[in-house]
Amino acid sequence: LPGDWRSGVDAGAIQAKLSDDADHQIKAVCVVHNETSTGVTSDIAAVRAAIDNASHPALLMVDTISSLGSMEYRHDDWGVDVTVGGSQKGLMLPPGLGFNAVSARALAATASASLPRSYWDWQKTLASNADGYFPSTPATNLLFGLQEAIAMLLEEGLDAVFARHARLAEAARRAVQAWGLELLCRNVDQYSSSLTAVQMAEGTDADAFRRIVLERFDMSLGNGLGKLAGRVFRIGHLGDFNELMLLGSLSGIEMGLAVSGTDYQAGGVQAAIEFLAG
Amino acid sequence: LPGDWRSGVDAGAIQAKLSDDADHQIKAVCVVHNETSTGVTSDIAAVRAAIDNASHPALLMVDTISSLGSMEYRHDDWGVDVTVGGSQKGLMLPPGLGFNAVSARALAATASASLPRSYWDWQKTLASNADGYFPSTPATNLLFGLQEAIAMLLEEGLDAVFARHARLAEAARRAVQAWGLELLCRNVDQYSSSLTAVQMAEGTDADAFRRIVLERFDMSLGNGLGKLAGRVFRIGHLGDFNELMLLGSLSGIEMGLAVSGTDYQAGGVQAAIEFLAG
Amino acid sequence: LPGDWRSGVDAGAIQAKLSDDADHQIKAVCVVHNETSTGVTSDIAAVRAAIDNASHPALLMVDTISSLGSMEYRHDDWGVDVTVGGSQKGLMLPPGLGFNAVSARALAATASASLPRSYWDWQKTLASNADGYFPSTPATNLLFGLQEAIAMLLEEGLDAVFARHARLAEAARRAVQAWGLELLCRNVDQYSSSLTAVQMAEGTDADAFRRIVLERFDMSLGNGLGKLAGRVFRIGHLGDFNELMLLGSLSGIEMGLAVSGTDYQAGGVQAAIEFLAG
Amino acid sequence: LPGDWRSGVDAGAIQAKLSDDADHQIKAVCVVHNETSTGVTSDIAAVRAAIDNASHPALLMVDTISSLGSMEYRHDDWGVDVTVGGSQKGLMLPPGLGFNAVSARALAATASASLPRSYWDWQKTLASNADGYFPSTPATNLLFGLQEAIAMLLEEGLDAVFARHARLAEAARRAVQAWGLELLCRNVDQYSSSLTAVQMAEGTDADAFRRIVLERFDMSLGNGLGKLAGRVFRIGHLGDFNELMLLGSLSGIEMGLAVSGTDYQAGGVQAAIEFLAG
Repeated sequence: LPGDWRSGVDAGAIQAKLSDDADHQIKAVCVVHNETSTGVTSDIAAVRAAIDNASHPALLMVDTISSLGSMEYRHDDWGVDVTVGGSQKGLMLPPGLGFNAVSARALAATASASLPRSYWDWQKTLASNADGYFPSTPATNLLFGLQEAIAMLLEEGLDAVFARHARLAEAARRAVQAWGLELLCRNVDQYSSSLTAVQMAEGTDADAFRRIVLERFDMSLGNGLGKLAGRVFRIGHLGDFNELMLLGSLSGIEMGLAVSGTDYQAGGVQAAIEFLAG
Repeated sequence: LPGDWRSGVDAGAIQAKLSDDADHQIKAVCVVHNETSTGVTSDIAAVRAAIDNASHPALLMVDTISSLGSMEYRHDDWGVDVTVGGSQKGLMLPPGLGFNAVSARALAATASASLPRSYWDWQKTLASNADGYFPSTPATNLLFGLQEAIAMLLEEGLDAVFARHARLAEAARRAVQAWGLELLCRNVDQYSSSLTAVQMAEGTDADAFRRIVLERFDMSLGNGLGKLAGRVFRIGHLGDFNELMLLGSLSGIEMGLAVSGTDYQAGGVQAAIEFLAG
Repeated sequence: LPGDWRSGVDAGAIQAKLSDDADHQIKAVCVVHNETSTGVTSDIAAVRAAIDNASHPALLMVDTISSLGSMEYRHDDWGVDVTVGGSQKGLMLPPGLGFNAVSARALAATASASLPRSYWDWQKTLASNADGYFPSTPATNLLFGLQEAIAMLLEEGLDAVFARHARLAEAARRAVQAWGLELLCRNVDQYSSSLTAVQMAEGTDADAFRRIVLERFDMSLGNGLGKLAGRVFRIGHLGDFNELMLLGSLSGIEMGLAVSGTDYQAGGVQAAIEFLAG
Repeated sequence: LPGDWRSGVDAGAIQAKLSDDADHQIKAVCVVHNETSTGVTSDIAAVRAAIDNASHPALLMVDTISSLGSMEYRHDDWGVDVTVGGSQKGLMLPPGLGFNAVSARALAATASASLPRSYWDWQKTLASNADGYFPSTPATNLLFGLQEAIAMLLEEGLDAVFARHARLAEAARRAVQAWGLELLCRNVDQYSSSLTAVQMAEGTDADAFRRIVLERFDMSLGNGLGKLAGRVFRIGHLGDFNELMLLGSLSGIEMGLAVSGTDYQAGGVQAAIEFLAG
């Protein structure tokens, strides 16, 4: 289902599509909870309701790579069949661990699946995991790191972690708006707490801007991907992140806007400071 | 020689004192190059000239703990007899290494010195150092770190390192002045590139302010020492430090000023941003 | 093609099998260069010759997980089409990086391959690699480690690295033989330089022995896999490994043999010492 | 009081010396609990008794640098006035922390002491420590390490730690004796659990031997100091050390003895293995 890359998934369109699929050719609905390339979130519970309303057996599969540990996510409550996560964002670890949460229905589906598979076969992993092992060499050092990362998240409390990210994200958006730049995400209720993508004015080379920030201030901003290439830069504010890190990042952007001769209004950092001190 | 803690040493007063010391009771003139507790520097070459003008044999001993590697310092050119430095500030290492640069005159003085000493005896260290050893167990891991720290400083170039610190220090001072707060250091030519001490208004509890910044924003500001206790906070900007770290730090202070109800004017971070992007 | 798990692959049998495959149903010959579970190596050049002798178009695919960086291996010279390696053994890194060396023929084969694939698709990786990027988040920290690991291997010299592993492996085998235990690998020219698997006497519980060594001496020996479960223990001697590490390991085994009441002859470590000091 | 460097201190000689000191010119009796350069221990309780028997007011000061955390030591029970320790041996940390345990009598003595002191002045440290601070910049990273080191020692249990070191030391001595070499320490009840010093035969260059072991097997043995230079090598077995590390070390020595052409008997490692597996 194509979208405009500035809004979350359209649950109504999903429901319509599934309702049209009378002979159940569609096997799964795949949704990204928090789209890393755009900073737009989607309402997973609404997608679940759409599937149910269409009385369609498709599995619901959700990518939580950039939301897990930074934004609320409820695999069971939201009726997700397969959740995919990774270690390298909200869990504050290097890349190297992937996580799958799998429903009974999804497990049952693998029994009749005919696509050849080995690495991706849950059965081997589940069988090994039952004894505390893995079917292939595990990244043991990352498992130790994961233990500590989870302890850190639980010590702060997941609600506090999510509130922290929400607060920092709101501060980032206020800075962007004070600069007179445009948030890529169109809808207030779909803002991401993990990252903020900023659309620069037509004719402005976002990659040239990013390069200046990198060279002058040693900060690597995310780039625009696909059709957003050269139009967008992204500000990450997930994981082990606090007010001072955010304001350092926003300061680098504001200085970069000045140095690059971009058309902007000063005061973005100031706006963020006022929000965060409020 | 007492001072007001807001100015560097008075070379004229040193010369007068030494001139009065006709029978050379004074053995050494001890000066701190960059006073960590106040952010005030002293003109070491002027002190050397004062000693020479008084034709006095006192040794010149200089503490460079918080200037070494962050500000220009010239042991030989400035005629210093003993320079003391440490690993834990401009050299970007943990505490654990101390350095002595010693002139021929200072070495000669130890030959006739009668104060019992062992740990502080240069002769044993020099004898061991000649073969690449130390008279006691060295902190080998820090020596490896020192090797890398020096490589980093030389890769950037000492002049560039000093210019970077000077630029960041000027940005910090502009923030302080924009907030309407007072720099502890009175004289423009004695400003420190390593740290900036800020004197809060009479009646304001600087330690209460520091506590708020620590608790709310996880940033530990330096405190006022001795007679400055409770009156001063200090901003460190030495070592491995760049624009974004500084602006994160200044942001924490500006938010702390707001949260603590201090009488201040917003815009300090903004002033620093404008200076650094200029 | 089944084997006895104590010998390398039978090139003659491969040739016969391929010669029988007149309509080329067989797409690839997959061989493990150094079998981690048995300590048996196979002659890859001989397998290549077998394929060529049969004039069969099957691709030659080789697993070098436990030989890469520890034993000589020649992807091009031996006419291999796909070589698979990993970071976690001879390259001395944590698990997390996999390597593929791919021949032009193998690349061409992917053009007509019909099995759905995404993660396993070389084209996306090659396209990204051309610019120095990856199609998904790379394990950047391991890439830095790889750079250093390769520098270490080249500094020692690959020939010296291989000779070191061969020497340590021979010492391990001498210890095993002095204990009166049996090497799993039957053929002298198929001994592994990476690890040595030891077959315990019929009726001896190798896992109970391994448990005693772990509990008493804090050393984890490899276990027997599949049909070798409970019959075999494995001694790893690959990667960043030297004489003293090996002799510590062999000492743990010899003490474990004594403590566990295994029927053995003392003197294995002594035999290894004599060989290594010879 | 001179000694032969192969025996611990002579408590009787101390008592006699103190008894002769009728006007109490002697201020302190300084003893090393475990002499790092010889591997000889001294009976501290006996020294205390000697002082008491002489009814002399001298303070008892003990260096525990290489025994603390590896061998039993009782500051209070043995009536020690000043105990000095360090982080870099039994506490398993890098060099950088020194510890003083000070009796009330020793503290009282500082009140009337006239030797100028600043760094060595306990009063400033005690005053700062009362609030959890230090009078100068502390090695904070080592304090975190100390916290973990102490947790490790307590988890194993101090009695178990001491028993482990005693067992490993006995194994080392059995190896030395099996080689036909001579222990520097003359008296069985003065053997060190931290290290073993080995005296090589007259005419054998211990440093040449040590160099061969370093070059061939990458192991650095301790050298002979002072009048033992060139006659002695030392085997450390303290701190985070187990059977396999010891046997690796002893193997390096036995190979070095063979390679260097030293007159010795094979079987030292074998003797250690038999003892440790017994």
